[in-house]
Amino acid sequence: MLHKQEEIDFSLGQNGCTDEELLSLVRHTIRRSVDTGHPHFYNQLYGGTDPYGLAGAWVSEACNTNQYTFEVAPTFSLAEHAVLQRALELFGFPNGDGIFAPGGSMSNMYGLVLARYRMYPDVKLDGLAGLPPLVVFTSEDAHYSTLKGAHWLGIGTRNVVKVKTDAAGCMDPKHLEQCIIKATREKKKPFAVVATAGTTVLGSFDPLNPLADICQKHGLWLHVDACWGGSLILSRKHASVLEGIDRVDSVSWNPHKMVGAPLQCSMFLVKHEGLLHRSNSASATYLFQQDKFYDVTYDSGDKSVQCGRKVDAYKLWLMWRKRGDEGLSRLVDNAVDCAQYFAKIISERPGFELVLPEFQCTNICFWFIPSSMRDQTRDEAWWDKLAKVAPLMKERMVLQGAVMLGYQPMAHRGMVNFFRMVTTCQPPPTRAQMDFVIEEIERLGDDL
Amino acid sequence: MLHKQEEIDFSLGQNGCTDEELLSLVRHTIRRSVDTGHPHFYNQLYGGTDPYGLAGAWVSEACNTNQYTFEVAPTFSLAEHAVLQRALELFGFPNGDGIFAPGGSMSNMYGLVLARYRMYPDVKLDGLAGLPPLVVFTSEDAHYSTLKGAHWLGIGTRNVVKVKTDAAGCMDPKHLEQCIIKATREKKKPFAVVATAGTTVLGSFDPLNPLADICQKHGLWLHVDACWGGSLILSRKHASVLEGIDRVDSVSWNPHKMVGAPLQCSMFLVKHEGLLHRSNSASATYLFQQDKFYDVTYDSGDKSVQCGRKVDAYKLWLMWRKRGDEGLSRLVDNAVDCAQYFAKIISERPGFELVLPEFQCTNICFWFIPSSMRDQTRDEAWWDKLAKVAPLMKERMVLQGAVMLGYQPMAHRGMVNFFRMVTTCQPPPTRAQMDFVIEEIERLGDDL
Repeated sequence: MLHKQEEIDFSLGQNGCTDEELLSLVRHTIRRSVDTGHPHFYNQLYGGTDPYGLAGAWVSEACNTNQYTFEVAPTFSLAEHAVLQRALELFGFPNGDGIFAPGGSMSNMYGLVLARYRMYPDVKLDGLAGLPPLVVFTSEDAHYSTLKGAHWLGIGTRNVVKVKTDAAGCMDPKHLEQCIIKATREKKKPFAVVATAGTTVLGSFDPLNPLADICQKHGLWLHVDACWGGSLILSRKHASVLEGIDRVDSVSWNPHKMVGAPLQCSMFLVKHEGLLHRSNSASATYLFQQDKFYDVTYDSGDKSVQCGRKVDAYKLWLMWRKRGDEGLSRLVDNAVDCAQYFAKIISERPGFELVLPEFQCTNICFWFIPSSMRDQTRDEAWWDKLAKVAPLMKERMVLQGAVMLGYQPMAHRGMVNFFRMVTTCQPPPTRAQMDFVIEEIERLGDDL
Repeated sequence: MLHKQEEIDFSLGQNGCTDEELLSLVRHTIRRSVDTGHPHFYNQLYGGTDPYGLAGAWVSEACNTNQYTFEVAPTFSLAEHAVLQRALELFGFPNGDGIFAPGGSMSNMYGLVLARYRMYPDVKLDGLAGLPPLVVFTSEDAHYSTLKGAHWLGIGTRNVVKVKTDAAGCMDPKHLEQCIIKATREKKKPFAVVATAGTTVLGSFDPLNPLADICQKHGLWLHVDACWGGSLILSRKHASVLEGIDRVDSVSWNPHKMVGAPLQCSMFLVKHEGLLHRSNSASATYLFQQDKFYDVTYDSGDKSVQCGRKVDAYKLWLMWRKRGDEGLSRLVDNAVDCAQYFAKIISERPGFELVLPEFQCTNICFWFIPSSMRDQTRDEAWWDKLAKVAPLMKERMVLQGAVMLGYQPMAHRGMVNFFRMVTTCQPPPTRAQMDFVIEEIERLGDDL
């Protein structure tokens, strides 16, 4: 990894360089990059790429076109359509619609925009002026994209109500209903709930059936941020953690996370046909000519808030076609199996302490307590000391270690820095690798 | 090109396929795609890719990482920083800031969000409820992304005021000022002007100096959608069409358009330091830990509305480093030269009629009038007939032709379908190719 900016001269200027100089710079770039394809890169909710996915990415990069019209992207439009259809079937929206978006935050914004459009279609024309403050509910463990989206969409981050989670990190439906009632009493207008299937840190799944009941009762749109945990829909063994997802209004799912499609690969799926186009269309006559000689229903561009749109579907299509549902299911199951194995081993190992006794996704959150700190009174000074352990170990990991995983505090639970180990499909992890990671953590942290 | 969905079976299902089957499907995909790298693909505001850019894209795809932190993208963070710095210098914002965004529509939304945030910083927290309707001004020739953005941001498309353009397609500053005064009288709140440098169809450049004067006088943010025409900043000969751009607040520029960086490659640049972060940050503790051991100012992710963010800068960095400012300037100059040559030839050729006598970018808009329609009275029936010529010729182009260019009507100018020829840097066009296109158009349309 690169530690100092000075190691490579990235500056640009008047004159170019030779191919040899360029090649040397590219070699340096690769050598000094983080090897996310390394079996022991567990730092983020993505890892290596599926090799078939990478092939697909290279093909679509080389074909350099735009997903907006069938005219310039005939094959990629059909591939996008096929992937969306399969995903819609899996999530239980057979008559739904969808679009690829540049990342999960954008996909989640699609959900908020459609929720608002369904309740107040005039917002498209008139904007929010004159309306009461709109309120969206999400859990305190949910991803920050709802906050960023609320700012951009003119809703305001104050109007993102954080619903409490239970000990397992799942949204508390009772508290959600209390929050809805409270907001209504305050003359605000609840319009959407953003549930999470696989929270970023703990990997928790909000209970979709009770949430759907509440949303139905109060007339609210239920969007599920399944960017991370949505991949479990592919698994025969574990899809049940997503129970109730066929009852929700929309879903975001990022195959660039667990299943290893190259970045970016995110889709937004919606149950209600036609809404995506009605909400987002601007009918530009220079691009979406209706007097084309082919079937213009394959022109997906006017469903999107983007104009130019990168081909993100083809790489996923390629890996899916190669592996089938069956093959993807096996890869997901292996990732879950390794995570469960990891959790089981550390739950019995001195110095490791699980943040959650049970877990639903492939996140395993834990503190590592160095030998010198074990069996001591856990007062404030002790926790302050423990808070510094993870950053120090992380520095060692990066500078001299063989593994890389992330850490974070969790202020709303009063938790100091803990590690988040996470497995993904690519490259397929093994139980032996899990053993190695555990030993490496001990090696890096035990003397602290 | 693919004409019927049935030609390739894109369906996905339970079982996978062999490598041989997959390879055959990939070959079909490529063969039936539109060859955007063909010298005679003039259909969109992008074309082939710069080969160095494509190499950069493949490298960054293979390294599959996320632009949000230096921790996981050390080299790519520095490359992004270097490209943004060079672009900021060129556009005259040496102390500015910037971010790569997934396409020009998103970059333009960044401009609107910052404009609003500067005027009403509380919008981030409180949203738009209680504020007067905010109004943004753009020209009637401007891109539809301001409309889409206005919907998403809660401003409303009704509050996008279309300012008149002159005969050359440039925003009329006098009419802009009248519109601002009118909106204020109507108790609305003007907050931003979106000017265009290189409009989508005609390629016109709004007069930035007079617009900057008006924005200064009325306290409005001036954003420039230079997604298309911004590439002329690279040209020694033609950069003057962007005169005054150093006086504006923000700029969007898409190097994936004229200069041939692979899609997507769009940047948002802002003159005011720190605003991008203050506006968009959510300070997620799981990602942007402040107790990291390296300089966290290279963590660009919290300036973005996205969380995961694809590496879009490196491909541009690679081609820029190879060619230098000098090399990119030559490529842009060649594209402009060919466009000028094309315009000159058709201006003297029977059957061709230029929509604009002068042009500023590489768009050449024209009607082709088949022999049988020349020297006839131009009544309504005649124009109705001419409206059908371009779609018919386009169908022939796609099915049997050797060139591909776009057409569109322009309702606000009362113009029926006309062609838009457009040159880009890649692959570098030649004057001989321009001659060929003209002959091909005659061949395809003369008998109509």
